[in-house]
Amino acid sequence: MNFTGRHILSIDQLSRGDIDTIFSVADSMEPYAHRKKVTKVLDGAILGNMFFEPSTRTRVSFGSAFNLLGGEVRETTGVENSAIAKGESLYDTARVLSGYSDVIVMRHPQSGSVAEFAEASRVPVLNGGDGDNEHPSQALLDLYTIRKELDTKGRSLDDFRIALIGDLKYGRTVHSLCKLLGLYQRVKVVLVSPNELAMPDSYIDALRHSGHEVVETDELEPAIAGVDIAYSTRLQEERFASAEEAKLYRGRYRLNQAIYTKYCEPNTVIMHPLPRDSRSGANELDNDLNENPNLAIFRQTDNGVLVRMALFALVLDVVGQVDRESRPVNWYTGSRFQ
Amino acid sequence: MNFTGRHILSIDQLSRGDIDTIFSVADSMEPYAHRKKVTKVLDGAILGNMFFEPSTRTRVSFGSAFNLLGGEVRETTGVENSAIAKGESLYDTARVLSGYSDVIVMRHPQSGSVAEFAEASRVPVLNGGDGDNEHPSQALLDLYTIRKELDTKGRSLDDFRIALIGDLKYGRTVHSLCKLLGLYQRVKVVLVSPNELAMPDSYIDALRHSGHEVVETDELEPAIAGVDIAYSTRLQEERFASAEEAKLYRGRYRLNQAIYTKYCEPNTVIMHPLPRDSRSGANELDNDLNENPNLAIFRQTDNGVLVRMALFALVLDVVGQVDRESRPVNWYTGSRFQ
Amino acid sequence: MNFTGRHILSIDQLSRGDIDTIFSVADSMEPYAHRKKVTKVLDGAILGNMFFEPSTRTRVSFGSAFNLLGGEVRETTGVENSAIAKGESLYDTARVLSGYSDVIVMRHPQSGSVAEFAEASRVPVLNGGDGDNEHPSQALLDLYTIRKELDTKGRSLDDFRIALIGDLKYGRTVHSLCKLLGLYQRVKVVLVSPNELAMPDSYIDALRHSGHEVVETDELEPAIAGVDIAYSTRLQEERFASAEEAKLYRGRYRLNQAIYTKYCEPNTVIMHPLPRDSRSGANELDNDLNENPNLAIFRQTDNGVLVRMALFALVLDVVGQVDRESRPVNWYTGSRFQ
Repeated sequence: MNFTGRHILSIDQLSRGDIDTIFSVADSMEPYAHRKKVTKVLDGAILGNMFFEPSTRTRVSFGSAFNLLGGEVRETTGVENSAIAKGESLYDTARVLSGYSDVIVMRHPQSGSVAEFAEASRVPVLNGGDGDNEHPSQALLDLYTIRKELDTKGRSLDDFRIALIGDLKYGRTVHSLCKLLGLYQRVKVVLVSPNELAMPDSYIDALRHSGHEVVETDELEPAIAGVDIAYSTRLQEERFASAEEAKLYRGRYRLNQAIYTKYCEPNTVIMHPLPRDSRSGANELDNDLNENPNLAIFRQTDNGVLVRMALFALVLDVVGQVDRESRPVNWYTGSRFQ
Repeated sequence: MNFTGRHILSIDQLSRGDIDTIFSVADSMEPYAHRKKVTKVLDGAILGNMFFEPSTRTRVSFGSAFNLLGGEVRETTGVENSAIAKGESLYDTARVLSGYSDVIVMRHPQSGSVAEFAEASRVPVLNGGDGDNEHPSQALLDLYTIRKELDTKGRSLDDFRIALIGDLKYGRTVHSLCKLLGLYQRVKVVLVSPNELAMPDSYIDALRHSGHEVVETDELEPAIAGVDIAYSTRLQEERFASAEEAKLYRGRYRLNQAIYTKYCEPNTVIMHPLPRDSRSGANELDNDLNENPNLAIFRQTDNGVLVRMALFALVLDVVGQVDRESRPVNWYTGSRFQ
Repeated sequence: MNFTGRHILSIDQLSRGDIDTIFSVADSMEPYAHRKKVTKVLDGAILGNMFFEPSTRTRVSFGSAFNLLGGEVRETTGVENSAIAKGESLYDTARVLSGYSDVIVMRHPQSGSVAEFAEASRVPVLNGGDGDNEHPSQALLDLYTIRKELDTKGRSLDDFRIALIGDLKYGRTVHSLCKLLGLYQRVKVVLVSPNELAMPDSYIDALRHSGHEVVETDELEPAIAGVDIAYSTRLQEERFASAEEAKLYRGRYRLNQAIYTKYCEPNTVIMHPLPRDSRSGANELDNDLNENPNLAIFRQTDNGVLVRMALFALVLDVVGQVDRESRPVNWYTGSRFQ
């Protein structure tokens, strides 16, 4: 599709070609995000970073991505819904706020609200997460990371094996990831969860319909034995009927260095949508994995900046100008990106 | 007056000539606000956007206006009054904060607080709303919108008819508007409200003293029949003794397309200070008016950016330099401004 | 030490030579902070201004300092610890957030947390205050102000007299100041406090060990008679067992113009870490001192911007480039700095 001026609300909008485009633009953003070069391509542009629900990391990631392109950020952090409390419709909020910026990222607790907002907005809207519904930039950064990690091992999205581990019933990120996998070929998907938290059938059916091999199990160790990617998730405790019920599953699957060494292939990549729950009762990914070079969880968040830069550059149609407006970085940057 | 370095605290400071100046500068800001051109005239300047009471849209509007002139924005959003809670005076707060920026916008829940703050500030202060007292940029954007809308119909602020509708007792914006109308000639003002929420006599007397014709009524339909502007307002529910009392008046005046078609002249302009209450019990301006080209409520908020840019440019004395520091916009902007 | 890429977590890291370096860079920042010149040396750089505890003035001061160097600021204001609430470790938070910016200022309520965070951060971290532990930029701005004030009187940090007044038991700023004084020679320190709120012995011993003269008293008037600097502090009410206990000491030492005139030498400098408690029950420094040119409390906060600019310029290694990237200010600035 032509991205110029478009809203990005759902991964369902995106074809395999669209994703190729996003990823190729994301690749080209690396010198800027990794502080080799500075670009001013969006100098003078304004992002409305509208978070009607708090989310520090997603908010800051989008804001930094826009700054890295040279633009300014105005934002709200979810604590002051005065107009909405006074009975204002999302339509009005969108009409007003879209007069204040060139592009809007919106996060909102209600499923469907961002699409409704976008309908009335006069500028492109990127969905920053609307409740249980969609969080497309997260899904894209996961897939982008998988592609990049596979690439270093000489493999590709069209032929690999992944285990999805944990709360597969409520986890929005694994649902989106399954949808995206449907665009590729020859993927083996191992689903590891307690029976009660299994991946909903619709996602499994779709995977199989795409020709993928799907295995379901409730045991971690054998499942991670033959995969390229082990994707662990957090228990969505807030989604359970009671704290007691959530506790039944807390800490069920714990990956640490000893298990990794014993069961995994040497270069199995470890991923997680973050935040990982590091409290002793949960501890999905043990801290003793922190020095394991295959732990890709912080490469995921780093990649999030690249993907968000790409989305901004595409919808605002400046991809071709990025390098023209660039110069070398003149301050200390260390060597913080791997 | 000479705006350079001045505080803008109240519309009472402004003569008709001053308002002409502000509006003419606001007109010249249109290419920048409407994203035809970028200016860097305030590149390096800092706005202290100090909202000690939440107000998303006013805060973002001021911040975007400053960004559109090329400046940076530091801000606070009303949630962290730690110093004030520890017994700090407004004098101290002003002395400290005015060392951090070149101009300050302040909003504060207490009437008179912004003037007290400005007294001690070492940089120009713009009143962003101090309780029931003043919100001068809102009053100016209303008047600016009226002028612009009349202009497209070949009329002017010196000869027109306006209906003010709703809670005229507590509505700060209609009070300010009445004061400003006193600077012009031959205005017919139709006041539509329940008896108990009538416009205070002092404002009516002042209008009549300026030679304006004032009509009071409690019925909507005949009142809007012969006006150029129908200015509807929200019931200030928070100002009533009880929620019950407020309910008596909620939804009393509702303008929709059917009533508009039946009673109004063809091009009657519809205004509202926003937020409009779109809940079924209130519904001051029905959503079926959204496609009516005479609904000017979002042009009002767009105009707010122009007026705020003008105030910044005037008090920081850069009006003559804006165009010198400009270049064309290089990203997608669509055609979002009417 | 070589500041490039270093974390600034504690004043204990700094030698006398390091402090000389910081102060000399701070001096060179004055034309920029005082709005004579604009520099773009950090154009394109991003500060992560991470306040996990609210502190308007420290947050805005750091943010403005970074803007004054030409950089952008992304920030959080302490209200949305969602990831931490979900069990995320400081290690993970640091690894993630340090992918979003070039330098981080962190404030956090827990003592030691900022050092733990810095350990995992991939970019330099400046401590913006971690509970009762450290607030190094505050200590540095105090010492910088003393040096500057003494300089106008032809004296220096190596030979002067200072009274520290008030809650010397809990006041973090006076503890840090005592430590820093140990780096200099021939300082006379007069400690004025109720017995129960006396300076802890370890600080007194260290001062004496450095060869300084230390006098302890519980009376204000004689103590301020022979000093160059009278440094007053706020009672740390939140640190007492009960509000009742705090009340016993509230308002014990009050300096006003009459007492100043009667007891102080003509040019005794008055300082305070701010906020000063101006409520009638406390009133540590009376408002009738506001016109006294020796009241240096707002010069302290102004100096804070200079010191913070210096820290950023040093850790990001751009000190030598600041002037190269500069131009004159083109907007109204008045004469707000003394």
